[in-house]
Amino acid sequence: MNAEIITIGDELMRGEIVDSNKARIAERLLLLDLDCRHQVSVLDDPADMRDAFLQAAERSDFVLVSGGLGPTRDDLTTAILAETFDRKLALDEASLAAIEAFFSKVGREMVETNRKQAYFPTGAEVLVNPIGTAPGFSIRVGRATFFAMPGVPRELDRMMDEQVLPRVEAQLISADGGASRRVVRAALLATFGMGESTLEAELLDLLRDGEVELGFRTSFPDNFLRPVARARTAAEADLRIAEATRSIRERLGAVVYGEGVDTMESVVGRLLTERGLTVATAESCTGGLIAERFTDVPGSSEYFLGGVVSYSNEAKAAMLGVPESLIAREGAVSEPVVRAMAEGARSRFGSDFVIATSGISGPDGGSAEKPVGLVWIALATRDGIHADSFVFQVDRSRHRRLTAQVGLDWIRRSMLGAELVGPSLLRRAGGGSAPGSTGAGKS
Amino acid sequence: MNAEIITIGDELMRGEIVDSNKARIAERLLLLDLDCRHQVSVLDDPADMRDAFLQAAERSDFVLVSGGLGPTRDDLTTAILAETFDRKLALDEASLAAIEAFFSKVGREMVETNRKQAYFPTGAEVLVNPIGTAPGFSIRVGRATFFAMPGVPRELDRMMDEQVLPRVEAQLISADGGASRRVVRAALLATFGMGESTLEAELLDLLRDGEVELGFRTSFPDNFLRPVARARTAAEADLRIAEATRSIRERLGAVVYGEGVDTMESVVGRLLTERGLTVATAESCTGGLIAERFTDVPGSSEYFLGGVVSYSNEAKAAMLGVPESLIAREGAVSEPVVRAMAEGARSRFGSDFVIATSGISGPDGGSAEKPVGLVWIALATRDGIHADSFVFQVDRSRHRRLTAQVGLDWIRRSMLGAELVGPSLLRRAGGGSAPGSTGAGKS
Repeated sequence: MNAEIITIGDELMRGEIVDSNKARIAERLLLLDLDCRHQVSVLDDPADMRDAFLQAAERSDFVLVSGGLGPTRDDLTTAILAETFDRKLALDEASLAAIEAFFSKVGREMVETNRKQAYFPTGAEVLVNPIGTAPGFSIRVGRATFFAMPGVPRELDRMMDEQVLPRVEAQLISADGGASRRVVRAALLATFGMGESTLEAELLDLLRDGEVELGFRTSFPDNFLRPVARARTAAEADLRIAEATRSIRERLGAVVYGEGVDTMESVVGRLLTERGLTVATAESCTGGLIAERFTDVPGSSEYFLGGVVSYSNEAKAAMLGVPESLIAREGAVSEPVVRAMAEGARSRFGSDFVIATSGISGPDGGSAEKPVGLVWIALATRDGIHADSFVFQVDRSRHRRLTAQVGLDWIRRSMLGAELVGPSLLRRAGGGSAPGSTGAGKS
Repeated sequence: MNAEIITIGDELMRGEIVDSNKARIAERLLLLDLDCRHQVSVLDDPADMRDAFLQAAERSDFVLVSGGLGPTRDDLTTAILAETFDRKLALDEASLAAIEAFFSKVGREMVETNRKQAYFPTGAEVLVNPIGTAPGFSIRVGRATFFAMPGVPRELDRMMDEQVLPRVEAQLISADGGASRRVVRAALLATFGMGESTLEAELLDLLRDGEVELGFRTSFPDNFLRPVARARTAAEADLRIAEATRSIRERLGAVVYGEGVDTMESVVGRLLTERGLTVATAESCTGGLIAERFTDVPGSSEYFLGGVVSYSNEAKAAMLGVPESLIAREGAVSEPVVRAMAEGARSRFGSDFVIATSGISGPDGGSAEKPVGLVWIALATRDGIHADSFVFQVDRSRHRRLTAQVGLDWIRRSMLGAELVGPSLLRRAGGGSAPGSTGAGKS
């Protein structure tokens, strides 16, 4: 059995927006072990839509259509699907009532054109949309089952998960009594600090049995591991995934920082909350990014007390008490200054942890002795201050993101009792290239 | 004449990455007034690729192919294009030399498989790739011209701009001696504070002549205007775009904050630099986001002195000198407190401007009197403090982004002598819905 995705809309064809719906649909089909062999996009044009529908009906078992279900004149999916496969359009009273209820709930007046969204091709099964005005529907045409869904990503996601995937799965089972059915389960493990090739080498032997396939994905500065297990039953697939996840975590230790939707800041926040600890920041080169990431997490006021963005030397002195003579002697990007920043913030905020950063993110501002990319990071704990330097040879934006990630990771590692290492993909300041090396550290 | 885009890769079909290449290509084709009627994606599979190439050769004049030019076994585009259209593969010595030179320049060893990237179908025209190992090529097949390009976005962008678009344009001209040729020019104007329907109503009469088409695009919290002009000559199109841009700016005034790649923070930074003025921040609910955006701009140390993220009440007192009794009496989210935050930051940083924020971004923490979404924003200038409140009924992330944008915009408006208004799409605190209204303001 195979699947095809058709997305519809002039805005896609003109490149005005990037079409993320295809990836959202394809990723979900993969969970049913369903191959997606064709992806097609067309304009809001009747002839082009008809051609695409006819071709899909011939070659595909499942056709996932997104877009064109809105109330405007450009929204043609329902009408053209009906016309292409010789169906009439009929009003579905339940859908009309649902659309009316939706408008009444959000306090907007329903316009006449919205009535159109309650009409479906005869023989269609309606797919409810609890968070929008456009219901979806499915129709069977020969070997193919078409699913028409709204183009709004969050409405699409929900309809896929709640309405479409269960129906596709049921059809897969009924096709051959479940003989060829395979359930797919996947996990996502977030790692920081180890390069992709090193990760691969570390995990090679673990996955030799072939029961679990391991995918890699990079989203700077993290690497993600995606174990995928196929089995006859959900229970078996779940078990394999749980085992693979446990093995990977055992092998990689603190390099794995989270699973699923975890972010570094949400994981650090959870650990701080569990332990009843607090944190503050003293940022120069990261310019507020670490504070911004902490406070992006709902409930962060439990553990994030505050921070100083001491971008100028005067601010380092006035707000954190860093002696001006020290800055004059050592320079703002130096171990003594980043330590003084951390100390100053801890005494002022009274937090258990402080992360301090001072570096040259570029593109300008470097010298022979202190090149663009140099950064000093300090972690103050109740036991003292750990500081280390790195040269991150990446652009300004990545330099800031990487520095912030190391700072957050150090807090996490400190709570877990793990070593305070820097990312292996980076060179240590003055130390040349040392993949896999850890910072020397000075505690 | 029409165009078709084919992107190739298992990772696209599995939804592992979002395919942004289609939008990059389509957006550029639009500049030549070339309709893109079909977009297709296929697996790294010989049969599926062949089908897609054959179908495109039949129905399209220009076929833009991206992906599958790498050195690995999965990279099949060149081989399958040659096979599909009965061409042999031949070594191009110049490309081999270029690939060798590329590896020598980046200091990596060239492996044997990279030789494959110097082979092209007979009759192909090579498209150089100055920033990667994979050259592209074009071949003509009947009515269609195929352009095969690498999938790496920055390599694709450059090859489109430098190699592909000029060839497409030349072919468009030669097809009918330029009789139907139209040059397209576009501009991008960034606006903040006015809803899309209001913008549309404001500009309707300006664009009635039909010489310039006006597109709208929203990227929260901004709205972008995209005038597109078609003309016989580039000079004529440039003139029309310049006139349209001038008219829009005249009509909308300070609502237009920038053009092209401008961001609100880069525009504010430019204005501060020109005037030799400085800024600092005192952030509660935005949690460092405003500071982070200021410092994201290279050279921002010229005008951004620093900031305090006073997330806890203790930090508001200790770092900004807000009296604890005031917080106890008025609450942290109140006019007196946000004013005291702004004053405290200005006296400590000594900057010309301070932006202070205090609000309830949610999802929790609201009360009947102070609902989730309420925010107080203050701008301190040398002349005094302007403060106003809003209720932004959006999720946490948007609440923070919107608050930050209003703060940045107030600094910009203050320097331009424009009114310090809030976004019209929002409700004022306690004031109910008032689209287009400005904050009452208390200076």
